[in-house]
Amino acid sequence: MAKKYVYLFKEGDASMRNLLGGKGANLAEMTNLGLPVPQGFTVSTEACTKYYEDGKKIADEVVEQIYDAMAKTEEIAGKKFGDPENPFLVSVRSGARASMPGMMDTILNLGLNDVAVEGMAKKSGNPRWAYDSYRRFIQMFSDVVMCIDKEKFEEQLQAAKDAKGVKMDTELDADDLKEVVKKYKEIYKQEMGKEFPQDAKEQLLESVTAVFRSWDNPRAIVYRRMNDIPASWGTAVNVQAMVFGNMGDDCGTGVAFTRNPSTGEKKLYGEYLMNAQGEDVVAGIRTPQPISHLADQMPEVYEQFANIAQSLEDHYKDMQDMEFTIEGGKLYMLQTRNGKRTAPAALKIAVDLVKEGKLTEEEAILKVEPKQLDSLLHPMFNADALKKAKPVAKGLPASPGAACGKLYFTADDATAAAAKGDKVVLARQETSPEDIEGMYASEGILTARGGMTSHAAVVARGMGTCCVAGCGELRIDECAKTMTTEDGKVYKEGDWISLDGSTGNVYGEAIETQEAQVTGDFATVMSWADSIRRLKVRTNADTPHDAEQAMEFGAEGIGLCRTEHMFFAEDRIAAMREMIVSKTVEQREKALAKLLPMQKEDFKGIYKAMKGNPVTIRFLDPPLHEFLPTDPEDIANLAKEMSLDVEELTGIIEGLHEFNPMLGHRGVRLAVTFPEIAVMQTRAVMEAAIEVTEETEYNIVPEIMIPLVGDLKELKYVKDFVVETAEKVMEEKGKKIDYKVGTMIEVPRAAVMADEIAKEAEFFSFGTNDLTQMTFGFSRDDAGKFLDDYYTKKIYESDPFAKLDQDGVGKLVKMAVELGRQTRPDIKLGICGEHGGDPSTVEFCDSLGLNYVSCSPFRVPIARLAAAHAVVKSK
Amino acid sequence: MAKKYVYLFKEGDASMRNLLGGKGANLAEMTNLGLPVPQGFTVSTEACTKYYEDGKKIADEVVEQIYDAMAKTEEIAGKKFGDPENPFLVSVRSGARASMPGMMDTILNLGLNDVAVEGMAKKSGNPRWAYDSYRRFIQMFSDVVMCIDKEKFEEQLQAAKDAKGVKMDTELDADDLKEVVKKYKEIYKQEMGKEFPQDAKEQLLESVTAVFRSWDNPRAIVYRRMNDIPASWGTAVNVQAMVFGNMGDDCGTGVAFTRNPSTGEKKLYGEYLMNAQGEDVVAGIRTPQPISHLADQMPEVYEQFANIAQSLEDHYKDMQDMEFTIEGGKLYMLQTRNGKRTAPAALKIAVDLVKEGKLTEEEAILKVEPKQLDSLLHPMFNADALKKAKPVAKGLPASPGAACGKLYFTADDATAAAAKGDKVVLARQETSPEDIEGMYASEGILTARGGMTSHAAVVARGMGTCCVAGCGELRIDECAKTMTTEDGKVYKEGDWISLDGSTGNVYGEAIETQEAQVTGDFATVMSWADSIRRLKVRTNADTPHDAEQAMEFGAEGIGLCRTEHMFFAEDRIAAMREMIVSKTVEQREKALAKLLPMQKEDFKGIYKAMKGNPVTIRFLDPPLHEFLPTDPEDIANLAKEMSLDVEELTGIIEGLHEFNPMLGHRGVRLAVTFPEIAVMQTRAVMEAAIEVTEETEYNIVPEIMIPLVGDLKELKYVKDFVVETAEKVMEEKGKKIDYKVGTMIEVPRAAVMADEIAKEAEFFSFGTNDLTQMTFGFSRDDAGKFLDDYYTKKIYESDPFAKLDQDGVGKLVKMAVELGRQTRPDIKLGICGEHGGDPSTVEFCDSLGLNYVSCSPFRVPIARLAAAHAVVKSK
Repeated sequence: MAKKYVYLFKEGDASMRNLLGGKGANLAEMTNLGLPVPQGFTVSTEACTKYYEDGKKIADEVVEQIYDAMAKTEEIAGKKFGDPENPFLVSVRSGARASMPGMMDTILNLGLNDVAVEGMAKKSGNPRWAYDSYRRFIQMFSDVVMCIDKEKFEEQLQAAKDAKGVKMDTELDADDLKEVVKKYKEIYKQEMGKEFPQDAKEQLLESVTAVFRSWDNPRAIVYRRMNDIPASWGTAVNVQAMVFGNMGDDCGTGVAFTRNPSTGEKKLYGEYLMNAQGEDVVAGIRTPQPISHLADQMPEVYEQFANIAQSLEDHYKDMQDMEFTIEGGKLYMLQTRNGKRTAPAALKIAVDLVKEGKLTEEEAILKVEPKQLDSLLHPMFNADALKKAKPVAKGLPASPGAACGKLYFTADDATAAAAKGDKVVLARQETSPEDIEGMYASEGILTARGGMTSHAAVVARGMGTCCVAGCGELRIDECAKTMTTEDGKVYKEGDWISLDGSTGNVYGEAIETQEAQVTGDFATVMSWADSIRRLKVRTNADTPHDAEQAMEFGAEGIGLCRTEHMFFAEDRIAAMREMIVSKTVEQREKALAKLLPMQKEDFKGIYKAMKGNPVTIRFLDPPLHEFLPTDPEDIANLAKEMSLDVEELTGIIEGLHEFNPMLGHRGVRLAVTFPEIAVMQTRAVMEAAIEVTEETEYNIVPEIMIPLVGDLKELKYVKDFVVETAEKVMEEKGKKIDYKVGTMIEVPRAAVMADEIAKEAEFFSFGTNDLTQMTFGFSRDDAGKFLDDYYTKKIYESDPFAKLDQDGVGKLVKMAVELGRQTRPDIKLGICGEHGGDPSTVEFCDSLGLNYVSCSPFRVPIARLAAAHAVVKSK
Repeated sequence: MAKKYVYLFKEGDASMRNLLGGKGANLAEMTNLGLPVPQGFTVSTEACTKYYEDGKKIADEVVEQIYDAMAKTEEIAGKKFGDPENPFLVSVRSGARASMPGMMDTILNLGLNDVAVEGMAKKSGNPRWAYDSYRRFIQMFSDVVMCIDKEKFEEQLQAAKDAKGVKMDTELDADDLKEVVKKYKEIYKQEMGKEFPQDAKEQLLESVTAVFRSWDNPRAIVYRRMNDIPASWGTAVNVQAMVFGNMGDDCGTGVAFTRNPSTGEKKLYGEYLMNAQGEDVVAGIRTPQPISHLADQMPEVYEQFANIAQSLEDHYKDMQDMEFTIEGGKLYMLQTRNGKRTAPAALKIAVDLVKEGKLTEEEAILKVEPKQLDSLLHPMFNADALKKAKPVAKGLPASPGAACGKLYFTADDATAAAAKGDKVVLARQETSPEDIEGMYASEGILTARGGMTSHAAVVARGMGTCCVAGCGELRIDECAKTMTTEDGKVYKEGDWISLDGSTGNVYGEAIETQEAQVTGDFATVMSWADSIRRLKVRTNADTPHDAEQAMEFGAEGIGLCRTEHMFFAEDRIAAMREMIVSKTVEQREKALAKLLPMQKEDFKGIYKAMKGNPVTIRFLDPPLHEFLPTDPEDIANLAKEMSLDVEELTGIIEGLHEFNPMLGHRGVRLAVTFPEIAVMQTRAVMEAAIEVTEETEYNIVPEIMIPLVGDLKELKYVKDFVVETAEKVMEEKGKKIDYKVGTMIEVPRAAVMADEIAKEAEFFSFGTNDLTQMTFGFSRDDAGKFLDDYYTKKIYESDPFAKLDQDGVGKLVKMAVELGRQTRPDIKLGICGEHGGDPSTVEFCDSLGLNYVSCSPFRVPIARLAAAHAVVKSK
């Protein structure tokens, strides 16, 4: 038997969502529930996939099944397409598995033609309505199916009104509209080179094709990428008998939610319009009424609707978003779906549904999307203040939240101003590691260059600081200390600006911000998540402040404490530079000795903030030239400070130049060349741990992490120094503590050789940023130049730096997990790349049985929830 | 029973080489053959490995076995250690599995002490000899075992001669030497804080330990790395009864080869010295006699030796290198081993041994090391001229051969001078892709910066041009056009210099060079290799000239034709730059149209040179900024040429800047962004192929290779353009030809996803340069800064860019081979990284069943022989 591509509503049910799309499956389900649904059929997502496989052609077998279903639908309706007495009309709507804006939405009144319009006029006794419907159909079909510019039609309509000297469409009568229909058909013929199709079957096939085609329009592609929807899912098409809300005063149409989608309040919420079709509601010419008014206007219909709403919510066990139409006093349900909601609403509804006994806790947490929580965790603009403001430029929404402060153009200026108590926004061409201190001091960061994964963006997300990156339309002149918009408006140092890191908007004025509110529902849902999840959630934190923040957000340890940021502070960079330009081990050890007490204090602060939770400290990672100045003046100053010849210092700096710093002298390679650095860091880690253990009741078990390892011997070489130093410190201090030595798995070779490396590594932490870069062979700093082409051309569906590439990079991770456990069954496994806060990656990590994920403090709640989702979904 | 660590000579045989080392196994074998060998025992390589495993300590069980073997050896000799009448003395020698200079070599006369020396004096009636032996032993033991500076002993000896007013050691009598021994023992005590050991067992254990220790001295580590010897092999120690060639005129010592090691001539070759110990031969005080004189001097001994030599050669089926001593007219064999030989000798001996019926062809080819052939394939200095020359500087031997020419400092100058017919040497700080044309025009290339894998080195090896790289002691001033040595000698443009790319020597004068001679034996051995090998050998060649060269060396196709080098030529770079700065597809296509005819002619030339052999053409790979100027003046000129604003052009160039060009916008990514480039290149490939097919009798089947692919869709996107264009060209030309589209596997993701990628790729070519870089996570341009530390610290034993890392990178290659074949069982597989010419990598490729290796033209014969070795060894 031929494969089935088309399903009557009564042949489906809600479980067939993948095949019928969300809309189709729910129409089928409502049909089965005996609800008043205009009947019709769904062309399946498989038909869409087949359409693309067949080179964008609808196969004959599919066409045949569509015609067959059409005939059966006509039978159910007791009407016929093109019937001059009682013509059958349908709507055509797209309906993917997940709700997806950006695709072709709706065509109404399909089936109208020169003959049927007459039948419709006669049957309804309302020729004006019939011709208006026909006019709308032609316009809609021409626009969305044939891509004819709708302006052309609007112009004709305007001309008709001008000729008659009226302003409103409603002032045109049946004859006027008959004339408009004639003109419309002329436009169509002119544009398409043929007559407007009179055959309802042709109209239908063209419309179905248009829906399939729209699955791949650029907006849809972008939306899919932003929402992790694979192209292979395809969309279904729903063909449904028309009902009319605009046939008279006992007609109407509306949308409603079973609960308030903004607040979650348990009360029917929505609006409707009498004597109107859906598009009139959207058009905003008439003001819709709140749904509660319907109770007065049509009490029976309201009650019926309220009952249906409740039964749908009970049935789906979730807040429903419904569309309905009233035709001649009779209620029809056109759609129901789980309603979209704000984060606070999602939390409240989840908690309420559990209270009402409708959901278990495990079911309830699935009602909150982990990513949604993001908006709850950052400062926001005061909504009223924001309404009055107008952005002066728009960049990339690189790190969420809102920021308002005085403009500064160098990290030093920003730091100084912040020290005086000013709120500061740092604006730079692009940021570099030298700017770290200034970035920490700022409320928000603005850059003219760089993408979502630029230094500014990555660091800002890590710090939870608002950032707008790559705002190319601004000219930021760091020397003149000015920022100029495209309009030529100039902002100077000290001027107030505001940034919206969630939209990318830049405002040339101060806008009041407020700390985000965390309601009790949030805590409730998180506590459920914590009791359900298996994965531990740690944080990436480099300072006691970040660590405290993360603890508040529920972090259970630090998975990645980068030590290099600590060296950029003004009081340390000098010693760091002295270390780098040292010519002998003795000189280097002398400089390191200056860094030791500072580093030790850092670690003590972090241990204390973490209250005995595990802390993984990554040893020095970046290439040393990052710590040296590049500007001739700065070099001259440094030379003076270091009592070096400028030429000599320049030579040293040039000697450190690297063609590909990402693939250069960094990570464990630094410790191989200069083991004394690892020795100093080990001493700081261990002395701090012993002192904090003695000063507090916490039992500190530091985890020392060697980065960028690719070979067992490489790790062993450095580990030997670490262990020797650690033992020495413990002997000196007369106190034994536990500590672990492990490695990052971030070069592909480490993944492939993980069985070997596990002989020395007591834990693995997957550094998926670098692993992604090296596995794909592109750096995130440079990939911005071509990744957009990869999305547009449908090669990649998501940003591999945001969502872990499970096929490729994930295969290496899986291999490393298996090999590592072969050698050391109890090896501790975690992930500390940026992916650690991405829900889909968290689920992947759970499936591999990792021990923990680690992410920036502001993503800890997201990861906690995602980890719980993973458990529930895997059941 | 305890593990056996010590073997008497009579307990071993030649097959136990891994356990007993080369020397020990051959002493055992000679013992078994009944030859006159002073007896002794071998401490096995396993004892050495255990020594390191046990933290550099000889285990008690090993000590016990040594003492036990010692006792048995005394028994055989009928003498006893420290016997005051007839003391037993031994030599201690290292002996690894492979012959390995750089390790501790020999200690003679071990067993002497204050008592034994008297016994020896009495027994021999030669007290002077006895005390001289003791003196030598103390000096040798102190130097090589205890690392006491041997100068201290030389000074004492000199003092004794001065005191007596004599010049020669031989003028000191027994009493003088007795006094010297006393002084020597005082030095020892002063340095070591204890008496010179009188216990022979202690002397022995210390000596064995010293041999083990020397396995890991820096020189040995370097040698192992250069010769692919793993540290885990360890060395054995041979302890052998002393025989004395210096006891009188019926005594002597010598070394001899069964054939001439320089020419391969079949004639006993060597020298000897009467009344001497081995070290006297080396010291060069007396001139040794050719071995043939022994026939006159001691005809019976000579005949016995000649017979033994012949029987050893027959037994080992290879040319032997032997050491012997005559004591009291009696011949003793101290060592035999397969003799080292020059490349011409290796070839002649291999051919002769087959002619003599001693070896099969398969056995014979194993007698020639593939790497040896290198010296036969490049120009060489005239040996007499070279003897008179003195180097003025020394850099890295980056690409072998000899070069002599006039000095030029820019690629343009070099090109111009060469065009006038001058022989040219190009000297640069470092080279860049812009220098390609000048590099082609030069006899040799000299750089001040960069390592063995720098641009200069890699390109020069590819072209087979002599190169000395990273010669840091030279100051090369490209602006002043001068080169200054450390002594301050200045060389100017046009001065004659010479380079030896095999030693790294730079000469400040012209030295006559000569083309290498290829004898008939070479051709014979190659023809055997060709008939034995399974792997095809292709070449990496970008020009018809390289292709012709490679064909002469036996290449069977081109495995990698890089198209980018073609764009650097002066008449093309303009169009290339126009293409790069284009703002629209149309502009770009216009510029590409200018490149098309040139590119087509390139391909026609290459197809014709390859005479119908397969040609794999890699599409444009490097980031586009490599084609743009960086110098402000050049930018200004280009702006003028392109009718662009300087500022605008500067902006474009800056916009193309990449942080990590290796991980940037290159390879297939260029074709994804600008498919029109791939379209032009496809057109050139196909039009050229059709035209050559029509113009000649060759059947051209071009193989189009897309570089840097990491994803199926990425490959498919570009392949679709290639196929569409290819079909269009064939239709236009009215001729169908076969062609293939494949990809390089050079990013780790491609290896991991090879099953997917093979759906579209008709062949894989492993780009092991990039694959190595990305798998290890370091770039070859930057790795030079730390790789030396990795060798010194014994983390890496070989350069992963020269010898494929079979454990890590090789695992990915293997994975890709298996996955690729799963999808496409007949997929064509090759390797085209620099590793393609490395013998150990060739053997690895054979074991994976690849179809071919591809390497630079000058390494083709090496690869052919290595491929044959692989087949024979795998049997």
